[in-house]
Amino acid sequence: MKKHVYFFGGGKADGNEKMKELLGGKGANLAEMAGHPALRLPVPPGFTITTEVCTYYYKNGKKYSKELKSEVGKAMKKIEELMHRKFGDPANPLLVSVRSGARKSMPGMMETVLNVGLTTKTIHGMIKQSGGNERFVYDAYRRLIMMYSDVVMEKAAGIEPKDDESGIRKQLEKIMDKVKKEKGCKSDTDLTAEDLKKLCWLFKTKVKDILGKNFPDDPDEQLWGGISAVFSSWNGKRAVSYRRIENIPDEWGTAVNVQTMVFGNMGNDSATGVAFTRNPGNGENDFYGEYLINAQGEDVVAGIRTPAPINEYSKSEHNRTLVTLEKTMPHLYKELFTYQKKLESHYRDMQDIEFTIERDKLYMLQCRIGKRNGPAAVRMAMDMLKEKLITKDEAIMRVTPSQLDELLHPIVDTKAEAKCKVVAKGLPAGPGGANGQIVFTAKDAVEWARQGKKVILVREETNPEDVEGMRAAQAILTARGGMTSHAALVARGWGKCCIVGAGALHVDAAKKELHAEGTILREGDWLTLNGTKGNVYEGRLPMMDAMKENKPLNDFLRLCDSVRKLGVRTNADTPEDAEKARQFGAEGIGLFRTEHMFYGKNSEEPLFRLRKMIVSKTESERRKALDELYPYVKKDIKGTLLAMDNLPVVIRLLDPPLHEFVPKDREKLQQLASNLGITMEELEARAENLHESNPMMGHRGVRLGITYPEISEMQIRAIFEAAAELINEGKKPYPEIMIAVVSDAKELKNQLEIVERVYKDVLAKYKIKQIRHMFGTMIEIPRAAFVADKLAEVAQFFSYGTNDMTQMGFGFSRDDIGSFLQDYLKKGILAEDPFQTIDQQGVGDIMKIGIERGRKARKNLEIGICGEHGGDPRTIEFCHRIGMDYVSCSPFRIPVARLSAAQAKIKEKAKK
Amino acid sequence: MKKHVYFFGGGKADGNEKMKELLGGKGANLAEMAGHPALRLPVPPGFTITTEVCTYYYKNGKKYSKELKSEVGKAMKKIEELMHRKFGDPANPLLVSVRSGARKSMPGMMETVLNVGLTTKTIHGMIKQSGGNERFVYDAYRRLIMMYSDVVMEKAAGIEPKDDESGIRKQLEKIMDKVKKEKGCKSDTDLTAEDLKKLCWLFKTKVKDILGKNFPDDPDEQLWGGISAVFSSWNGKRAVSYRRIENIPDEWGTAVNVQTMVFGNMGNDSATGVAFTRNPGNGENDFYGEYLINAQGEDVVAGIRTPAPINEYSKSEHNRTLVTLEKTMPHLYKELFTYQKKLESHYRDMQDIEFTIERDKLYMLQCRIGKRNGPAAVRMAMDMLKEKLITKDEAIMRVTPSQLDELLHPIVDTKAEAKCKVVAKGLPAGPGGANGQIVFTAKDAVEWARQGKKVILVREETNPEDVEGMRAAQAILTARGGMTSHAALVARGWGKCCIVGAGALHVDAAKKELHAEGTILREGDWLTLNGTKGNVYEGRLPMMDAMKENKPLNDFLRLCDSVRKLGVRTNADTPEDAEKARQFGAEGIGLFRTEHMFYGKNSEEPLFRLRKMIVSKTESERRKALDELYPYVKKDIKGTLLAMDNLPVVIRLLDPPLHEFVPKDREKLQQLASNLGITMEELEARAENLHESNPMMGHRGVRLGITYPEISEMQIRAIFEAAAELINEGKKPYPEIMIAVVSDAKELKNQLEIVERVYKDVLAKYKIKQIRHMFGTMIEIPRAAFVADKLAEVAQFFSYGTNDMTQMGFGFSRDDIGSFLQDYLKKGILAEDPFQTIDQQGVGDIMKIGIERGRKARKNLEIGICGEHGGDPRTIEFCHRIGMDYVSCSPFRIPVARLSAAQAKIKEKAKK
Repeated sequence: MKKHVYFFGGGKADGNEKMKELLGGKGANLAEMAGHPALRLPVPPGFTITTEVCTYYYKNGKKYSKELKSEVGKAMKKIEELMHRKFGDPANPLLVSVRSGARKSMPGMMETVLNVGLTTKTIHGMIKQSGGNERFVYDAYRRLIMMYSDVVMEKAAGIEPKDDESGIRKQLEKIMDKVKKEKGCKSDTDLTAEDLKKLCWLFKTKVKDILGKNFPDDPDEQLWGGISAVFSSWNGKRAVSYRRIENIPDEWGTAVNVQTMVFGNMGNDSATGVAFTRNPGNGENDFYGEYLINAQGEDVVAGIRTPAPINEYSKSEHNRTLVTLEKTMPHLYKELFTYQKKLESHYRDMQDIEFTIERDKLYMLQCRIGKRNGPAAVRMAMDMLKEKLITKDEAIMRVTPSQLDELLHPIVDTKAEAKCKVVAKGLPAGPGGANGQIVFTAKDAVEWARQGKKVILVREETNPEDVEGMRAAQAILTARGGMTSHAALVARGWGKCCIVGAGALHVDAAKKELHAEGTILREGDWLTLNGTKGNVYEGRLPMMDAMKENKPLNDFLRLCDSVRKLGVRTNADTPEDAEKARQFGAEGIGLFRTEHMFYGKNSEEPLFRLRKMIVSKTESERRKALDELYPYVKKDIKGTLLAMDNLPVVIRLLDPPLHEFVPKDREKLQQLASNLGITMEELEARAENLHESNPMMGHRGVRLGITYPEISEMQIRAIFEAAAELINEGKKPYPEIMIAVVSDAKELKNQLEIVERVYKDVLAKYKIKQIRHMFGTMIEIPRAAFVADKLAEVAQFFSYGTNDMTQMGFGFSRDDIGSFLQDYLKKGILAEDPFQTIDQQGVGDIMKIGIERGRKARKNLEIGICGEHGGDPRTIEFCHRIGMDYVSCSPFRIPVARLSAAQAKIKEKAKK
Repeated sequence: MKKHVYFFGGGKADGNEKMKELLGGKGANLAEMAGHPALRLPVPPGFTITTEVCTYYYKNGKKYSKELKSEVGKAMKKIEELMHRKFGDPANPLLVSVRSGARKSMPGMMETVLNVGLTTKTIHGMIKQSGGNERFVYDAYRRLIMMYSDVVMEKAAGIEPKDDESGIRKQLEKIMDKVKKEKGCKSDTDLTAEDLKKLCWLFKTKVKDILGKNFPDDPDEQLWGGISAVFSSWNGKRAVSYRRIENIPDEWGTAVNVQTMVFGNMGNDSATGVAFTRNPGNGENDFYGEYLINAQGEDVVAGIRTPAPINEYSKSEHNRTLVTLEKTMPHLYKELFTYQKKLESHYRDMQDIEFTIERDKLYMLQCRIGKRNGPAAVRMAMDMLKEKLITKDEAIMRVTPSQLDELLHPIVDTKAEAKCKVVAKGLPAGPGGANGQIVFTAKDAVEWARQGKKVILVREETNPEDVEGMRAAQAILTARGGMTSHAALVARGWGKCCIVGAGALHVDAAKKELHAEGTILREGDWLTLNGTKGNVYEGRLPMMDAMKENKPLNDFLRLCDSVRKLGVRTNADTPEDAEKARQFGAEGIGLFRTEHMFYGKNSEEPLFRLRKMIVSKTESERRKALDELYPYVKKDIKGTLLAMDNLPVVIRLLDPPLHEFVPKDREKLQQLASNLGITMEELEARAENLHESNPMMGHRGVRLGITYPEISEMQIRAIFEAAAELINEGKKPYPEIMIAVVSDAKELKNQLEIVERVYKDVLAKYKIKQIRHMFGTMIEIPRAAFVADKLAEVAQFFSYGTNDMTQMGFGFSRDDIGSFLQDYLKKGILAEDPFQTIDQQGVGDIMKIGIERGRKARKNLEIGICGEHGGDPRTIEFCHRIGMDYVSCSPFRIPVARLSAAQAKIKEKAKK
């Protein structure tokens, strides 16, 4: 029989940290901490219900298998034996927590129920246990009622409150506010035991009133209600939306952890805290953390009270006046310090630890690999490598591409910043700099971003409902919360600029106002954040490049280069881009789009001449326009070849359908008509003639080159003449001529004839012996992959155009996908946008076939990718795996590509 | 060393009829006739230069290998020995013909040179040989000059005459006409030896004058000129255009046959003729042919004189007054009769024979499988099967799909015809009936047809330059020529309606008038032809269905059914189409397009309601419109299920992008707006919202069903309720529900949920236990083929939508391909339009992957094709080969599909 329940506690455990798939991250680490001989830390005993139960639960109409009940019963018995308490025992009751725990951490996305087992029958036993602390017990009871009625009962009743205001939780909060007001209490802690007792009674009446059911007074009912609530929350709206963003498959499911309750809020000899074995903000090798006396864990995470530093090192401007744990409870701090050292050397990575002190006894509640920002990740990796804690390969694997990406984010221009007054200071929770317009709700953030605006989401504090808005914003700013608050955790995970706990700010979301030291900022006003320092500025400060002179980063990237096999080129359409890319480490250009050179220039001349060529009707008209266009094309190509001297430059001949270049506005049309000496009617007719029903699959790429060979010829001549001039100037240009939209080898042969003819002409004209060059093809039409053997007989290189291949592979027009993509993602039909990361199953299969057949015909065929996927880490890994020679991406993605390529190589080694 | 020249003659031959690829059809058959022990017929000795020489010639800049010259020399020697004559010998000269001969017959498409070897030095020897017939020899010489100067010299000089008038041939003809006029001659035959002698001198002067070269007087120069002219003509305009139409690869090349000249024009004891071992017009088992006394072969084919019947059987209304060969030369007729019998039993198929009688001696010049029209092909196949000449499989292989297609062509409505007066009678050269507007030039035929007009090409006689116009016309009508004239041969090959030799007609092409028994018809007037009878009618007579009560055809198709493995279904969108298709032999419906039912109805109501649904903005608006639409949809589905009772009906849910249905005209928009109670602006905005950049890959098919599940639901409900009603009426409906544009299994699962829910509802509502049905998917998105294993877990059947798969496989938008397809075909980049016949290499590979992966997941997966390719014979063969279960095509293509499926099976057996 399959085991569904894994016990841990008393120095033993059924599971271990390798069983994350089955036990979830939290469960596996609890087992490891409790049971591994090298650790055996003081973990409150408990058990984990496996993720397989979750899968079973959803497959069987939210029912459990028969065996589960008895397995849970047995595990509860074991806890009772270890704790010498009994679940539901009026004299000496056992209370438990019920928590989620997925394979990958999903902070705050699923439900938790604490204090389970507290009933009218066990309250008195509990008061006895707490040393007669009646207030504490009724506070625990009212917390249970609030949490349970919201998380379990309301959801089980199938009630979906229209808004926050109408939910049961809010109703109960209102009652509590009312009682506080009547009593003149400022804070929850001002309420007496008697007040809380009354509140519990009021709560239960309200629950019965609204939800039509009594609050359960049976501990088993509470326990199973809690378990089901956790499983149900796996498919809650928040969790599903988080999984979309984080690419977590729906099928994984969550585990449930049931664990003996320990209380950090049993008085001043109790506390709770969160700590990191190294500083997650900058990577320094020092023990770093926060704690709260007389508080429960949720209080730290929720950011309601500002936590104190655990030691001197953890002090910041923000909390430097508060007393450290090291000072108040030195023996417990020492114990904790030992444990964290043990954990880091055991796990060989920075750990994020949760602990609780109940009446002077330290309990370890959780440990996991700690999240860190990009700079910290790079520093830790390089430090641990030096400390010989990890190997070179491990160091490379320790930095995720998105962490690296953070380092490449712009930062606030230091000069501009120096001149500017800080409006507010907060905790540096997310790196880099950002500017944007203020919005006060997540919904607005999403809306505004959709309109193309840059926004900064300003909140008193964030909660899981804000996730989408946080995603949409350039940066997040909160007035409350610490480094471990929701906003900080989420932003750090994404590498997004974020400042939390900027206490000087007052956020009036209802009025849409932000009060800061006398000034009032309103919705739409500009703010600039320096997330690395925690500084908030009014207005829109300029940004600058973070890459310059970052030594650890450059060391790290060189480490990556020493490992990777895949080449990294760039997509660049101008000499300027090419130069920048070379600084980032590009080893050539994978895609130079001839047509892009016509846009974004100071002069409209080249574009005008291009347009003239396009609306030409006869070959002679067209040749005339091409002659006029020629010098512009040659100049840009020459500049780019020079910037990439001695490195390959793949130049793609004109690709998009001609009508894309026809001007839309009337004045330009008129200008064109008069220059061509034709009437507007004639010009409009010509333009109309170019119109297509499905231009994506129309007259473009090589199809243009075949019907209008003179267009290809002009470009090919420009390439060879530019190269010839450079050779005569002592340079080493290396163009690769690429044909687009190819579906048959005969198309290539047709164009190759032009290449060969022009090549001979140019050699003769410039009196040189040869120009190093290649002739090749895009592989973007699905058919091309199937006839790759034929293509490779003509082409010396392939470059995968995965944007178009995804369009045709899926039948998704990228321009039109908006009408259903959101539905597809929401309904889980697509796990992710296939234009972001390659679809390895379908499109990937087509790619593999192309490589296989191509290499069969030409062994040394050079194969790369130039679609936008080329900068996506998972795509890069895939490209490595299927044997490509290089990836090409935008200049800013090059460092990420260097890292991803190295990681791909390491993963491959690991598999062998 | 490779052999380039194959000799035949004197009862021996180097080659045989199996060597068609190397020797061409003509060469291989000459070798067989001359050399096979069972035949050894009197073939004038000669030799064949292989097709490999042609390939070499084009690969090497129109040069020959060194060995060729000596091989040809040796072969010429052998002829001289056998004939006891010498090439170029003034005393006893040998003359030869130089003819083309490709693998597949290309009648009249390439060049021929006769009388090669006739020079000023050999003329006198030749006169001696002919028994002093000076007139005959000078006539042969003037023919040589005319032919050679046109075919060899003008082309070699690179002169391309602007029009027929300015070519050398026309110039010479003008001289001849002038001489005839001077002499008062009506016909060529009236010219005396002296006249012809003078003409030769005039010709040579003109040739030198225009082409700047003397007419060659060296026999070797003549021979090699002729050989090169034939090879060059392989890439002549006419030949290339014919190959495009007939799908003959450019790479095949032609062979050249050099053969001793024999003369049918040496006097009244000489003759030439063409015969068939069975009647090619109706298939009757009788010897059938035509001949001309004192004429050369070209005279028969050119149709200048009306040929006489060879026997009583061959008599027709047209030639019944002429004397038969059987009567004039009974001994030679008997000899010929014996040879044709031998040939048919040797080749086991109807033979097309050319013969010449030179001074009372019979020579066999050619034999080949005879072309026949559709009815004849079917009859011959069935007869030969009964005669046990051929097997069942052979009988099936004897009818080509296009021949069968002829039988399915419409014929003139017999009742209407009975009432109508025949304007003219001619030879029934092409079957079926046709009506159309008169045009007088091939160019006009092409032009008018492009404008969508139905035309009849009327010509005095046709020549190879007319081929494209003949193709474009509904039918061809000529005033001259026999059953073996150019027009008849070509039309018969295509199965096109054609009447030749309608001598009562006078065609005045210059005036664009057709004179027929007193009436004058002009360009654009309507004509109706009955090609089976040879009758011409004035005006536009109605057509009727040829399939009805055609017993040999039905017997033949049943023979096919007994062999084929592939099922044949139809694409039908209405109950009427379904009924018709069932009559044609459809075994179910492979594609019922829900959206098609809205067009072409008497009432615009359903379309209006559909439009209403489409521009609905909210779900409730949409549901209301869907409710209104529901009864129409159910009615058509019910009618179709009934028409196909007990047979499967694949019903595809709404596929095309919604905006396709938005009305374009303003009045209808207004009507829609007022019915919806919205303003025109609002309606236009909604319509605008539906616009897409690339609708082919936009929001369509299952994507609509996912974003608007209520649309799927309505259709699914209509299907199940229609079926349920039929069940309760005692019928056996069998719907297969098909989802379109699928790229992932999750899309299918999403829709399957709706199907399952609605199915349960309907069963309960109608109180029935089950409705036999299937759930399946189109495979048209390339990705679908790659995830076919996943799809097959959900789908019970696949149906290949090869139109869209070709669009996406090639990246060809079918609507936009016009701008380059012609260029692609002309430049040989595409061998054929991939929307006509499936691209087996690329798209075919994708299909194979889909089948393989699909069947891996579900062994009994039903797989069919419903794209328009489903009616294309080569595609059908491919579908059989890759293991599909059925093809689906338009009702009229069903018989062709039944035949093609049987042939595919037979071909497969042959390969094993």
